[in-house]
This record gives sequence, structure tokens and C-alpha cells, in this order.
Amino acid sequence: MSAESITRVILNNYVPDGTPNPSDFRIETVPAPTADMLRDSELLVRPLYLSCDPYMRNRINGRDGYYIDGLKAAAPIAGLGLGVVEASTSSGFAPGDFVTGGFFDWAQKAIVPAAGFSKVSETDRVSLVDYVGVLGMPSFAAYVGLVTLGKPKKGETLLVSSAAGAVGQMVVQLAKIRGLRVVGVAGSDKKVEFVKSLGADAAFNYKTCGNFEQAIRQAAPEGVDIYFDNVGGEFLDAALMNMRPYGRVAACGQASQYNVTANETYRMDNFLQVINRKLNVTGYVITDHYPTPSFAEFLAEVDEVIGLENGPTALIDVFVGNNFGKRIIRV
Amino acid sequence: MSAESITRVILNNYVPDGTPNPSDFRIETVPAPTADMLRDSELLVRPLYLSCDPYMRNRINGRDGYYIDGLKAAAPIAGLGLGVVEASTSSGFAPGDFVTGGFFDWAQKAIVPAAGFSKVSETDRVSLVDYVGVLGMPSFAAYVGLVTLGKPKKGETLLVSSAAGAVGQMVVQLAKIRGLRVVGVAGSDKKVEFVKSLGADAAFNYKTCGNFEQAIRQAAPEGVDIYFDNVGGEFLDAALMNMRPYGRVAACGQASQYNVTANETYRMDNFLQVINRKLNVTGYVITDHYPTPSFAEFLAEVDEVIGLENGPTALIDVFVGNNFGKRIIRV
Ligand SMILES: NC(=O)c1ccc[n+]([C@@H]2O[C@H](COP(=O)([O-])OP(=O)(O)OC[C@H]3O[C@@H](n4cnc5c(N)ncnc54)[C@H](OP(=O)(O)O)[C@@H]3O)[C@@H](O)[C@H]2O)c1
Ligand SMILES: NC(=O)c1ccc[n+]([C@@H]2O[C@H](COP(=O)([O-])OP(=O)(O)OC[C@H]3O[C@@H](n4cnc5c(N)ncnc54)[C@H](OP(=O)(O)O)[C@@H]3O)[C@@H](O)[C@H]2O)c1
Repeated sequence: MSAESITRVILNNYVPDGTPNPSDFRIETVPAPTADMLRDSELLVRPLYLSCDPYMRNRINGRDGYYIDGLKAAAPIAGLGLGVVEASTSSGFAPGDFVTGGFFDWAQKAIVPAAGFSKVSETDRVSLVDYVGVLGMPSFAAYVGLVTLGKPKKGETLLVSSAAGAVGQMVVQLAKIRGLRVVGVAGSDKKVEFVKSLGADAAFNYKTCGNFEQAIRQAAPEGVDIYFDNVGGEFLDAALMNMRPYGRVAACGQASQYNVTANETYRMDNFLQVINRKLNVTGYVITDHYPTPSFAEFLAEVDEVIGLENGPTALIDVFVGNNFGKRIIRV
Repeated sequence: MSAESITRVILNNYVPDGTPNPSDFRIETVPAPTADMLRDSELLVRPLYLSCDPYMRNRINGRDGYYIDGLKAAAPIAGLGLGVVEASTSSGFAPGDFVTGGFFDWAQKAIVPAAGFSKVSETDRVSLVDYVGVLGMPSFAAYVGLVTLGKPKKGETLLVSSAAGAVGQMVVQLAKIRGLRVVGVAGSDKKVEFVKSLGADAAFNYKTCGNFEQAIRQAAPEGVDIYFDNVGGEFLDAALMNMRPYGRVAACGQASQYNVTANETYRMDNFLQVINRKLNVTGYVITDHYPTPSFAEFLAEVDEVIGLENGPTALIDVFVGNNFGKRIIRV
């Protein structure tokens, strides 16, 4: 029997700046890894779906990363996805299990550490592709920031920036289900209307609203209990001035700061409010949360919610271009 | 029997700015409150010791406060202290109980809400006055920030600013007991020596160290797991650049920012690190923590630690002027 061979995608070299070129990668064919190569607590997996995400840009710049470990030059690209276990030396996984959460090599077959992966299954309402779609990483990031870190209580007020984005629109909907008053912020009137159509009690366009601090105050005169921050910078600073005592800030992203040079960084003025208002501010990276109870909770909730409508595949059609990401339907 | 009368201290008027004058207060004699005046969940208390603390300045400025509710003009001054219960309509307290934690009116007798108070007792090692001394508010603030919020693990590295202060020196000692590597920062070489004498593994003078970020890196090349922040501003910004992934920042105070005008506020440059390094930043006010399990844990630990030496009264002699606050001895 001749050895099986697989295709995989290799990062040729680090790409410190600018847009990567196809020549920064190469496709190669190599012998497939086999079960006898597994060390302790590893999985031999066959990826079925691989997710292409913006955060991966930082993993190939060759700089020491804090957020997520960088990838190695001359090694495979790796990212989130969904795969099936072919062999396992971890007691938590058996051949045939579907897994998500951890990093898959971009290869037809790969050996990966079991830590970080979670088992998932297909049901009558959830198909496997949903785990990289409506049940994918942005939705789970919304769940962890809002529920696990934000600890929402019925009747509280939530403010969410980039509310029409993949993460933001899931935040809006999970928050409405929990009986929160939801204020969404987005960058166009069309997005604002979309955010309202998802159930937000108030929404405004940060590009035309004038003074951020006042615009938030007008939309949430009672103050903000949870700020789900997707943008950072000046808007975060303004949000701090609107937080109620014991408020929580889920620091998910800082879209306003990703593309600025070092001396253009927005400098925060209102950090003293963290003490004055007894705030809790938590930064997180979603990959850390797949092996925690939050993932099962998230699946149970979103499964239920989306199942009540036409099933997840119908929902995936709801995507309205890149900026409108994924949505769930409240029944 | 003629009605008992009591003396109390009244805030005559708000004092928005500047140093308060004696004429901003008045002493009055009024009939004593009595047990039959108690509503639900209230205590009739006789304060034994009342604590004079800098934070009280903010309570009399008449501005809407977030940190701690302001006092009312023409009503008694109130603050932390230690008192004895004379009557109670709260199931948690009985006549004769000693209590601390909540706010006592500055009066010989007062009716106060039971919420916020905790029972304490005199032991062979702890005398009542210790609850406003070595077991007082700054020490408890150290405990809550370091232990309850910082969640220290043996072998981790702690950075603490204003390390020679009342709060800071307790942080240093509680951290050494827990097997942390401790880096202390203070504003004079004498204070730096004092911080080292308390057991800090490294300490430096922030006034002469040059670049903060580099000075921290030199003292903690392995990075910082917990930053206990007493000063805020530029030093906090530099600390963020030295945090290890999943680091915690206990936001206790911002001494560097209290006396600056609005446009002198230090503007933070490194807030993106909260996400990049997955940090948890928590602001807190110590009065919130008296009715929590942290208070009993704190008493048990500090009681034990100080008891091993010459007892708390001996320790109170260790005070080395205002800036050297309170200390405990590690045995
Ligand atoms: N912590 C984690 O593990 C984790 C996981 C997933 C995503 N994230 C982060 O979460 C955020 C949302 O992710 P997403 O996938 O849902 O992206 P998204 O919100 O769909 O897309 C980013 C959006 O950011 C907004 N934006 C861009 N520049 C801005 C600026 N200067 N000021 C304000 N808004 C600006 C834009 O929306 P407008 O048109 O409304 O301006 C843009 O559509 C991102 O910051 C992302 O990095 C974090
Ligand atoms: N959250 C709470 O519930 C709570 C409770 C108690 C205290 N606190 C806060 O905790 C902090 C420590 O309290 P404490 O009672 O122990 O006071 P402390 O540290 O004994 O006294 C304040 C110290 O701050 C330092 N300082 C002053 N200006 C500074 C500046 N511009 N930059 C850096 N350091 C400066 C000075 O020490 P150096 O000589 O070292 O500069 C000064 O001795 C204070 O910020 C206080 O407001 C908070």
C-alpha cells in the first residue's frame, strides 16, 4: 500500500507590512501524517471547513504577538475551522468526533494539540458548516463578551459599537433576548436602520452624531451598564463617561486603532472613571474560550434561537455583505 | 427621666474647592436617637472610633459622586470607623456587637442602615482600635486589590506603585506571603529602602529612574502578572506595556491624577494592550467589600500574621509618619 499524500498551505516567509502576495505562500504535497505519530494529548484531524479571518494578518507578521501566538515561517498556515477526528491520544476525543475551536493547519490532514478544541455535533437544526457560520467565531465572541464577561442582568442598558458587524449584530440580539435595553452604534444610516431592525431600542450613526459623549447620553440617559467595545479609541473614552457604577466593559476589539500609526493612537482621557465608577474592563481572545463551559452554553442558546425560524441554512442567506455578517432571529 | 442628648458634627455647607474651614462645619447637641425610631434593617450604633480619610474631601464638595455617595449639607459628616450596636432591626446584628465597614455618622449615637457593616471582635491579639489601624481601610484595600481582584498565584510577579504608602506596604507584605516576586515603586530612595526592608525583591525610585517602561522592564524582565495601581497616569501606561498575557490590574488609586486640572490629565496611550494581552482591569471602592467574605478572610490572615510578632499594639508603633502607614511583620 503506497503512502497517502496530502496538500497543505505553507507560509513561505513573514509579511511584516502591507498586503500579502500569493508568493508569500506555497502549496506543497507531502506524505499524510498517521496515527502512530501522535504524542500525548494530540489529535489527527481532517479539517472540513477553514475560516479566513482578519486577525490572521497579525499571525504572519513575524512579530512577537501577545494576542495570539504568531505562525512560523516555512510552517503551515493555521486557523479556526471545523474538522473530524481520525485518531486521538486525548481522553476527551475519539475518532469520528467533529471538533472546532482550536487551530487547524491548512492541510488535508494534520496533527494538532487537543487543548483548545471542543466537540460539536450535527443536529436537525445545525449543520456542520454553521460552526464556521452563524455559530462561528464572531458569534461566540459576542456571547463571551456579552454573557460570560458582561454578566448582563435584565433591565440593564447595553451599548455596543460596530453594532451592524458580525460580532455586533449578534450582541444586539443576545442582549435583547436577555431583556436589556440596547443602544447600537454604527457607521452609516443604513447600518443604523439594520441595527434597529434587529431589535435595538436606540441606534445612532457615529459619523454624523457630533460629540460622542453627548450622543451616548442622549441615547442612554440612564447610563450604560455594559459597553461592548468593538472600536476602542475616542468612542471608548466617551463611553467611559457614560458608564453606571459597577459597569462592565467587554474589550473585544479596537477597530478604530488598527490602522493608525504609533503617533496617531488615540490617547484616552477618562481612565480615572475605571476607579470612580468601579468598572471592570476585560480584554479577551475568543480562542481561549472554546474549551470552557461558555461554548456549550453558547451553542445551546444560539441553536435554540436559530432553530425556531427556518433553520440555520436559511439564516446564512441573511448575510448582507461582509459588513452585515451573521444574524439570528428572535422568535 | 429626661431625654439623653448627644453631640454630633454637621456639614454646614458644601465646600466645592479649596481647604475646608472650621466654619464649614458645626457642632450641635440634639436628643439622642432611640431604638423605637429604627426602621427595617437599621442599627442604633455608638461609634467608638472614627477614621479621618482623604477620600472624605470628595464627599463634601456637593458634586454628584460616582465613587462614594456625597454627604448632604446640613446633615452629619459620616465616615468609616468602629462602633458598638445598641439596638438592631437586622437579623445579622444584636446589641453589643462591634461593627465596622459601613459609614458612621460623626455623632455620639446614630441610626444607620445595617447594609455595609460587618461584625468584628476583640481577641487576645486584636484590640478594637486595630480595626481603624493595622486592620483598617487601607490594609483591607490592599487585601481586596491583591487577593480578591488580583487572584495571585505563587511565583507570579507583582508590581505595586506607591509601595511605601499605607496601602502599598500592606500589598508588598501580603504578596510576599503568597510567594510572589514583588517589585515596588516609590518616590524617594529612603522609601525604596523601606520597601525592600518589607521583603520586596526589587524596588526603584520613579522620580530618578528615567523612562518608566524601561525601569519596570529592568526590575521585572519576566513581565508583570498583577499591577496594583495606586498612582494611575503615565506609570499605569508604562505598566500596561509590561503586563504578561492574562495579567490583572487592580485599579485602587490614581494619586498622580488627583490634583491635576482637566487639561493636565495624563492621556493613556497603551489601552490596546488590554485586548492584546487579555488583561482584566478592575476599579473598586473598599467600602463595597466589607459585607463580603473577603473581609473575614482578610481579618483571619492579617490577625494571624501580626499576632505572631508582638501583637498589634506593638505594630502600631511601627508607623513611620504619615507616608509610611501601617505594616505587618512576616514571621
Ligand atoms: N476578542 C476577540 O476574540 C475577537 C473576535 C472577533 C472579532 N474581534 C474584534 O471585534 C470587532 C468586530 O469584529 P467583526 O468581525 O464583527 O468586524 P465588523 O464589526 O464586521 O467590522 C469592523 C467594523 O468596524 C467599524 N470601524 C472601522 N473603523 C472604525 C473606526 N475608525 N471607528 C469606529 N468603527 C470603525 C466598521 O463599521 P462601521 O461602518 O460601523 O464603522 C467596520 O465594519 C473587531 O474589532 C474585531 O477585531 C475580536
Ligand atoms: N479604592 C479604594 O477603595 C481605596 C482605598 C484606600 C486608598 N485608595 C487609594 O490608594 C492609593 C494609596 O493610598 P494610601 O492611603 O496608601 O496613600 P499613600 O500611598 O500613603 O499616599 C499617596 C502617595 O502617592 C504618591 N504620589 C503622590 N503623587 C504622585 C504622583 N504624581 N505620581 C506617583 N505617585 C504619587 C506619594 O508617594 P511617593 O512618595 O511614593 O510618590 C504619596 O505618598 C491612593 O491613590 C488612594 O486614593 C483607594
